[in-house]
Amino acid sequence: MSSSVGTLFRISTFGESHCAGVGVVVDGVPSRMKLQPSDIQIQLDRRRPGQSKLSTDRDEADQVEILSGVENGLTLGSPIGLLVRNKDQRPQDYGSMVQIPRPSHADLTYRQKYGIHASSGGGRSSARETIGRVAAGAIAEKFLLQEYGIEIVAWVSSVGDVDAKAVDLSSVTRNQVDANDVRCPDLSAAQQMSEQILAARGDKDSIGGVLTCVCRNLPAGLGEPAFDRLEARLAHAMLSIPATKGFEIGSGFDGARMRGSVHNDPYTFKNGRLGTLTNNNGGVQGGISNAEDIYFRVAFKPPATIGLAQQTVDYQGEKVTLEARGRHDPCVVPRAVPIVESMAALVIADLALIQKMRHPL
Amino acid sequence: MSSSVGTLFRISTFGESHCAGVGVVVDGVPSRMKLQPSDIQIQLDRRRPGQSKLSTDRDEADQVEILSGVENGLTLGSPIGLLVRNKDQRPQDYGSMVQIPRPSHADLTYRQKYGIHASSGGGRSSARETIGRVAAGAIAEKFLLQEYGIEIVAWVSSVGDVDAKAVDLSSVTRNQVDANDVRCPDLSAAQQMSEQILAARGDKDSIGGVLTCVCRNLPAGLGEPAFDRLEARLAHAMLSIPATKGFEIGSGFDGARMRGSVHNDPYTFKNGRLGTLTNNNGGVQGGISNAEDIYFRVAFKPPATIGLAQQTVDYQGEKVTLEARGRHDPCVVPRAVPIVESMAALVIADLALIQKMRHPL
Amino acid sequence: MSSSVGTLFRISTFGESHCAGVGVVVDGVPSRMKLQPSDIQIQLDRRRPGQSKLSTDRDEADQVEILSGVENGLTLGSPIGLLVRNKDQRPQDYGSMVQIPRPSHADLTYRQKYGIHASSGGGRSSARETIGRVAAGAIAEKFLLQEYGIEIVAWVSSVGDVDAKAVDLSSVTRNQVDANDVRCPDLSAAQQMSEQILAARGDKDSIGGVLTCVCRNLPAGLGEPAFDRLEARLAHAMLSIPATKGFEIGSGFDGARMRGSVHNDPYTFKNGRLGTLTNNNGGVQGGISNAEDIYFRVAFKPPATIGLAQQTVDYQGEKVTLEARGRHDPCVVPRAVPIVESMAALVIADLALIQKMRHPL
Amino acid sequence: MSSSVGTLFRISTFGESHCAGVGVVVDGVPSRMKLQPSDIQIQLDRRRPGQSKLSTDRDEADQVEILSGVENGLTLGSPIGLLVRNKDQRPQDYGSMVQIPRPSHADLTYRQKYGIHASSGGGRSSARETIGRVAAGAIAEKFLLQEYGIEIVAWVSSVGDVDAKAVDLSSVTRNQVDANDVRCPDLSAAQQMSEQILAARGDKDSIGGVLTCVCRNLPAGLGEPAFDRLEARLAHAMLSIPATKGFEIGSGFDGARMRGSVHNDPYTFKNGRLGTLTNNNGGVQGGISNAEDIYFRVAFKPPATIGLAQQTVDYQGEKVTLEARGRHDPCVVPRAVPIVESMAALVIADLALIQKMRHPL
Repeated sequence: MSSSVGTLFRISTFGESHCAGVGVVVDGVPSRMKLQPSDIQIQLDRRRPGQSKLSTDRDEADQVEILSGVENGLTLGSPIGLLVRNKDQRPQDYGSMVQIPRPSHADLTYRQKYGIHASSGGGRSSARETIGRVAAGAIAEKFLLQEYGIEIVAWVSSVGDVDAKAVDLSSVTRNQVDANDVRCPDLSAAQQMSEQILAARGDKDSIGGVLTCVCRNLPAGLGEPAFDRLEARLAHAMLSIPATKGFEIGSGFDGARMRGSVHNDPYTFKNGRLGTLTNNNGGVQGGISNAEDIYFRVAFKPPATIGLAQQTVDYQGEKVTLEARGRHDPCVVPRAVPIVESMAALVIADLALIQKMRHPL
Repeated sequence: MSSSVGTLFRISTFGESHCAGVGVVVDGVPSRMKLQPSDIQIQLDRRRPGQSKLSTDRDEADQVEILSGVENGLTLGSPIGLLVRNKDQRPQDYGSMVQIPRPSHADLTYRQKYGIHASSGGGRSSARETIGRVAAGAIAEKFLLQEYGIEIVAWVSSVGDVDAKAVDLSSVTRNQVDANDVRCPDLSAAQQMSEQILAARGDKDSIGGVLTCVCRNLPAGLGEPAFDRLEARLAHAMLSIPATKGFEIGSGFDGARMRGSVHNDPYTFKNGRLGTLTNNNGGVQGGISNAEDIYFRVAFKPPATIGLAQQTVDYQGEKVTLEARGRHDPCVVPRAVPIVESMAALVIADLALIQKMRHPL
Repeated sequence: MSSSVGTLFRISTFGESHCAGVGVVVDGVPSRMKLQPSDIQIQLDRRRPGQSKLSTDRDEADQVEILSGVENGLTLGSPIGLLVRNKDQRPQDYGSMVQIPRPSHADLTYRQKYGIHASSGGGRSSARETIGRVAAGAIAEKFLLQEYGIEIVAWVSSVGDVDAKAVDLSSVTRNQVDANDVRCPDLSAAQQMSEQILAARGDKDSIGGVLTCVCRNLPAGLGEPAFDRLEARLAHAMLSIPATKGFEIGSGFDGARMRGSVHNDPYTFKNGRLGTLTNNNGGVQGGISNAEDIYFRVAFKPPATIGLAQQTVDYQGEKVTLEARGRHDPCVVPRAVPIVESMAALVIADLALIQKMRHPL
Repeated sequence: MSSSVGTLFRISTFGESHCAGVGVVVDGVPSRMKLQPSDIQIQLDRRRPGQSKLSTDRDEADQVEILSGVENGLTLGSPIGLLVRNKDQRPQDYGSMVQIPRPSHADLTYRQKYGIHASSGGGRSSARETIGRVAAGAIAEKFLLQEYGIEIVAWVSSVGDVDAKAVDLSSVTRNQVDANDVRCPDLSAAQQMSEQILAARGDKDSIGGVLTCVCRNLPAGLGEPAFDRLEARLAHAMLSIPATKGFEIGSGFDGARMRGSVHNDPYTFKNGRLGTLTNNNGGVQGGISNAEDIYFRVAFKPPATIGLAQQTVDYQGEKVTLEARGRHDPCVVPRAVPIVESMAALVIADLALIQKMRHPL
């Protein structure tokens, strides 16, 4: 638990913002799979800071090293250790914040829980913790693509009050997503989102947003009732990402306003199998994939660390004004795209391996 | 996994709608706790069908038997086995549906996954599976109340398009919730919700809704980053309940529209500790409880089984019209109240026991 | 953990000696397997007390009820709940022992751990706890036999100082084992063992013994390095049985006295595959089955509860003489045969399901 | 599972003999504990090859790097990543063995399981995998010593046919153990053992041995019935070490020859508590520590890789003569001492943290 997740495809992450490095041990990766660092680096590059003017201007290369589990470009079936060195192990910018818990940040709760907190940068609650997840997720994705043809694509569907128009779940690609810095395939909305983010940055403020993710070509039968239901595992994975506040699958909260006669997805015969005419269920019925597209949305709050003055108190309860320094993202959702994709891949890979126990010999 | 959940406070549920019974093994219950069947029965009675004109008119007493783990009214620290006998083991109403997978129900996906499905009544995907959860949750709640003073109260906050007005999180009680059949403490909204449910029933249709739940008096420090974050575990627990489509904590999806300067919860000194002036985070920061109220919302889709004619296909792909028979709830949210409370209690009890590992001797 | 074990084929046991019943939830049982109570009862009957003059004269029928997971004689893939009612819920014989912790029994340590102990009969440390294991193991055995042809046979290989002659691992059957009350297929040794047990009983004393178990027809490839090595999982399973003190596989402790040139098992080509000429490794290499016979030995100490006077102290530390009453087995190994077989079956079934994740689609 | 073990104090190891490095992620380490690399290095130095003429003459420094979880010499409560770089990533000596599975080694079974095997050096089945365990175990030991005063000491109690005389469990120290290369505190036996090992080496052969381990000052109450019994967890841990074939605790297999009246450990009042006059149970009753010394023995087979000619077959089934090259230990038990200690520490640390859930607030 805690820093490990998964049953058969299982990861254990480690590392905080200013230690030697961050990484992950990935256990359960199928053997004889081709794997090289570039398979992993591609998603790390989409996650790293400094990609565009919309994110922090910290520039961290985040180069991954494969420590184990791969020989001659093939996976051995043994645990794959992955390491990304931290560039800045000695922070400069955080000194003033040591005496003041940043509002809505984890400074206080880590201290309450552990009796100690990394002196700077968020420690384990930092977004750098997600590097291990993205690295592991890239391996899971590669497995899912070659074994089942599964494609996972996430994008920014809202920033602040700007909503993207509906995106075609059946066809949207990562290239389309990456065509702009916001990672929103609705170009008109993307332009407005970009303006919102820059405006927030200009105000030394931050802004929230929503990601949508689609997973295509899942076989039917993935998900283990009652507690490893596919949507339960996805919800768990998404809410384990820093700054997330909500998850909905298929019709989601809107579905709660519907009648059954409208919400139900009637069956039809298509593609040589039973399929559904609509997809309000988002690809799951009874916790199990039904071979339709899985799609879900994840809400991210605005980043807690802002430069704007905040009236708060220090650890002694004395009133203070905090103006956070440091280089922070004004909006996390563009960089969260590969994180959401990776967490989805890890969940699906685990449930796919589990479902194999039901194969006849 | 699968039918078990939890690390130290751990449950394993069993049973489907038409077998001998349903139940649960609850492991990790602290010893020397007073426990008798009535402590458990009270929540089962709130969950059972036939309580009001708003639910199915099936009348199942659902009497719990404590099989083990308790002696002379005290828990022994050993696993507590709980059993509720099924009344109707031989169903009458479902015969015609065996050849037709009910739209948006688990009939098809169970067959795809297991190669077999219980002949009737939903089998393991039936709401009866939640009896074990509610029984176990009642024990968790009792522990949390006596050890920490924790109170957990859920209520119906929307049905269809009817939304309750804001409820006072700090004071709402189960008595207020149970004062009407809908279980909505806003009496005006409750009346409209009741009408919506009865209208759906009259139309042989069903309707969705949303529950809100508050957990008060949690100590600071519960939740294990990275993958046992409190909100991740709650999201997992809630999305493992049948018919759920969404979860949000604190500001949730609305928070994704805010700026950080609005969303952040500044600290103040109150009640002898650092607390927050607002609570957009919903009582968690960095995945760890901060001693403020935890509150979250859970979306339930409309029940899939409806009497209205549906155009669909049978297992052979032949077009058919399905008019489901049987006695079904037109809306699940009133009866889901104790289920949500129980799942929350199970999560918090587990994380509370884990946090004890950090106590000095 | 604690009362649950297994990853995919997973059991959760419950119950102590004088509660309503004992049982188990078995999760992960493959679906569409024929299963009826008699499949389970046959092993419970071999475990129950009162079978012969060598065991306690308590007579408990131990009838199993299948609570869930089976319909029309076929498994559904859902958890199988199994319950055996306790006959005597109100003990008579233990009253005097409540103030005196029985030497080498769990009375004291349960009290130290939980702050409470079942008032009589050993509570959770009672041999009745193993009923759930045997019931679950019978299901695992049925699966292993029909899917792989795996046969598991255990027998008594020593009682006190009496050792059975070598038994042919490749052919010994349960019928041969059950041909006498001691469950030793070496009839001459069996006679002497029987005399040793009766002599111990006559002296109000008890006596220890050793079981040997062979598992035939395992496919190669079962066992998950590093911590789910087959021998590690077997050792865990065996030492979790009450009264066990040792485990050895293959050459075991004798192997530690050998040189590599003697101990190594050279390969040969046999039965269309690579096999070994000798089997000092006991069917495992590097933690993974090699398709040779698995065999191992388990040491059981003499039962702690004896009628002979023991000089000890009570809970207050006052010197007392204890003469335990009650009906106890003078030697547990004959009845432990199905327990050892069941635990082996549970381990192998779990590892077999896990290995299926490596099947191509 | 697989490469992870533990519930609250949990490790995940990675690495094989010729990849970039080996290591471990240690989760659940209590926060605010002083920790520096030298705390870990001391046990790694006792494990490393090339320490004496009794082991392989490969000389690997095995310097540990702390990647995460520690700041300013204090643990943060977050996962501690530990890495030891492999010196020789490009093996020279194993080329000829690629076509021939070494008898009693894991070459064949890894290939059967994974369809691939590391080209050399044993891959994941190599003794280098234990580096992560020893590094993690050193942290566990430090925690146990400072929190409970627990001391863990293992030593070589037999090599081939040479047995050490009884060692005083209550007083033996690591200094006494390390006073000679064999790590046997009985100096006379140590001399004979050394001769046996050198003779085996001279013959290009190998030889087995037995370790004994004592754990002192455990509090009463550790161990979780039924499946996390202390002895079950220890057996699991020990049999997960490469080359082990047996485990016994307390009286072990000898106890199986005794009568209860001899084997039972009567209680007495000592040191202000109930204790036992004898300790045949080895410090556990009913799976729970009783505050007496824990002691157990572990059997190691002779190393499989020997230079002596062996008649075997290659992967194609063709008869061949194999004379293994490479630098191998003729006997593993001297270097296994810190491995056994570390695995014991990991088990006890995990069970100690779990038992804290029973503390009152």
